[in-house]
Amino acid sequence: MSVSIVGTYHSKVGRLKEETLYSLLVEAGKGALEDANLTGKDIDAVYVGNYSGGGFNHQEHLAPYAIEIDEGLRFKPCIRVENACASGSTAVEEAMMAIQAGKIKTALVIGVEKMTSLNTKGVTDVLAMASYYPVEGSKGYTFPGLYAEYAKGYMKKYGYSIEELYDTLAHISVKAHKNAMSNPLAQMHVEYTHEAAKSVHDKNPMIADPLKLSDCSLISDGAAALVLTTTENAKAMKDEVVEIQSLVHASDHLSIVEGKRSNYELTAAKYAVKKALEEVNLTIDDIDVAEVHDCFTITELLIYEALGLAPDGKGREALDNGIVYPGGKLPVNLSGGLKAKGHPVGATGASMHVLIARQLLGNAIGLQAEGAEIGLTLNIGGSGATNIASILKRIK
Amino acid sequence: MSVSIVGTYHSKVGRLKEETLYSLLVEAGKGALEDANLTGKDIDAVYVGNYSGGGFNHQEHLAPYAIEIDEGLRFKPCIRVENACASGSTAVEEAMMAIQAGKIKTALVIGVEKMTSLNTKGVTDVLAMASYYPVEGSKGYTFPGLYAEYAKGYMKKYGYSIEELYDTLAHISVKAHKNAMSNPLAQMHVEYTHEAAKSVHDKNPMIADPLKLSDCSLISDGAAALVLTTTENAKAMKDEVVEIQSLVHASDHLSIVEGKRSNYELTAAKYAVKKALEEVNLTIDDIDVAEVHDCFTITELLIYEALGLAPDGKGREALDNGIVYPGGKLPVNLSGGLKAKGHPVGATGASMHVLIARQLLGNAIGLQAEGAEIGLTLNIGGSGATNIASILKRIK
Repeated sequence: MSVSIVGTYHSKVGRLKEETLYSLLVEAGKGALEDANLTGKDIDAVYVGNYSGGGFNHQEHLAPYAIEIDEGLRFKPCIRVENACASGSTAVEEAMMAIQAGKIKTALVIGVEKMTSLNTKGVTDVLAMASYYPVEGSKGYTFPGLYAEYAKGYMKKYGYSIEELYDTLAHISVKAHKNAMSNPLAQMHVEYTHEAAKSVHDKNPMIADPLKLSDCSLISDGAAALVLTTTENAKAMKDEVVEIQSLVHASDHLSIVEGKRSNYELTAAKYAVKKALEEVNLTIDDIDVAEVHDCFTITELLIYEALGLAPDGKGREALDNGIVYPGGKLPVNLSGGLKAKGHPVGATGASMHVLIARQLLGNAIGLQAEGAEIGLTLNIGGSGATNIASILKRIK
Repeated sequence: MSVSIVGTYHSKVGRLKEETLYSLLVEAGKGALEDANLTGKDIDAVYVGNYSGGGFNHQEHLAPYAIEIDEGLRFKPCIRVENACASGSTAVEEAMMAIQAGKIKTALVIGVEKMTSLNTKGVTDVLAMASYYPVEGSKGYTFPGLYAEYAKGYMKKYGYSIEELYDTLAHISVKAHKNAMSNPLAQMHVEYTHEAAKSVHDKNPMIADPLKLSDCSLISDGAAALVLTTTENAKAMKDEVVEIQSLVHASDHLSIVEGKRSNYELTAAKYAVKKALEEVNLTIDDIDVAEVHDCFTITELLIYEALGLAPDGKGREALDNGIVYPGGKLPVNLSGGLKAKGHPVGATGASMHVLIARQLLGNAIGLQAEGAEIGLTLNIGGSGATNIASILKRIK
């Protein structure tokens, strides 16, 4: 049974001083219901993607709070899922399965995170719990440090020089910030120059060698929500809807530093993308627009290769030939991505699905990929242990 | 599509000094696979129920660690779910839906918690995050305090005296400890006398008025795991299997102290039980054995009423007429329950499903309900916000 999106909502992303974990969850849930012209009574289950309400906000067991969105949700199943920064896509996945199981018809999916309740040190410590803590977080590894392992691994594997790396990563950072200028909900509306992003200097300090500040995504508050239902039901509700045609979730070993998986490619992400495309008999050439997990600029470079936009070790080509820029064959992260739109971690996967749905409906939040019909999301958790790829298509 | 259990495992429960969150997860996962005569390659997805790996062990994003159970699990979806003390049953629920969706055939479900890494104060603080923190946990409410609200509400609603309450709760506590004497995996093998449990004294101090130490469940480490597959597949694998014939999940408002829901009955738990029985056209009279959520003795009293074993306000009758004792019409918590078997919170729902499956196969862990064919589990999260009831039946 196929599943479609009939309502979406995306909050502002940033340091939202007036908002709490609770207010963001309610804002997003109400917004998606309103967009779908539904009330709580029409919803059969709520799935909440949240990384660490415990660590950031002293709040586990968040899902039943969804009843505060609408009393009509009382006595419905409310479920929290957590898979680090891929919690939002996991919520989409589980809601889809409940619908496909025939157990429910319509689900509300909410991704939410409130990170700025802690200072930067506190946030870093909470995020470190998404690593394999005994071997990584507890030994001082931060997430910039874990992704620095990929940067170093990539340079070593392909003989990529630090100058080449910095030049390539600067292009990715500059693209993200430029795209975000058009996104009214983005956290940062500040353009970088290529030179500023390329070099290490006072305003662009080294965070985890070789990754600089300009290579890192943001600490954010935000939420996004979707209403999912059977495609049959969706078509009865709206003229045009967005179907989630495939969603593939592939896990890999939790730790990167133990050496049980690659440090120069996103092996399981590549696997997930390949399988998601195969399931619907498409190739990457059929995809019109993508939102992918640029938690660090190096991650986006590796994702170009995981998507098959460039051969292994030559991800840079996707930038050089213009594919991934606005107006290119496959614009990537028109929203500004995690780098500039922001990265409220548990919300990010839901955000990606909302952003692509809006692109395909011709109603983009920010830059529009003209005429886009088929889109892709790729959401990653931890240092590559959780990987979820979705293919979305506009249908009548 | 119906779903059955083809493999189970239950760890020792207690203060397991040699075990970690990781070793418990691996032990349970390997144990259930072995019991099912399967390897990782045969498993299509892993669902992990865990309440607060972050709070207890600095470990969020636990699910992909399941790959360490068996390399054959690599690239499969690994999903953590969290709904406070009902995380284990939520994992069962989501695995069932994935199978019913036809997305997967066979799932490994693991519930796990390692709580004794913190001292009692630390554990209390982590558990408080399962309340509505701004109004409860942050104001000093502990879980004994939240369930004390039920005890007080029950006394007020029904004009139940403190003497009656203490006499009733002592019967529940004594039953739990006596049952646990036969359970080799139980945390406590110590019998209480009725008099000792009934009164407040040095060894039975007041924890949260009116609840005493003998009314509270334990702080525990432990894990339990199940292999679920389509009933069709299960029948091809084993002569007798246990089918999960219904599972109903009902949520209620997160907070109890805000007064949006009852403080003298488990409203949503009652709803879940009723619906779970209706779905399979059974009544409580058809149930042969049950494992229910006695996080506090008052909770078990309220559960007798939620199950319909006694009228509202007269739960005590289920004790007086012997129904819930070994050899009674519906023995409740033959394992010793959360009170004496122990309560590794994220594992508890998985534990209940394992215990009932073993009862129905005539292979109980501890006391056996002779000839039991149909069993029930009732798992509760928070102070009654999450409620999951399952009906299990032995089939050929």
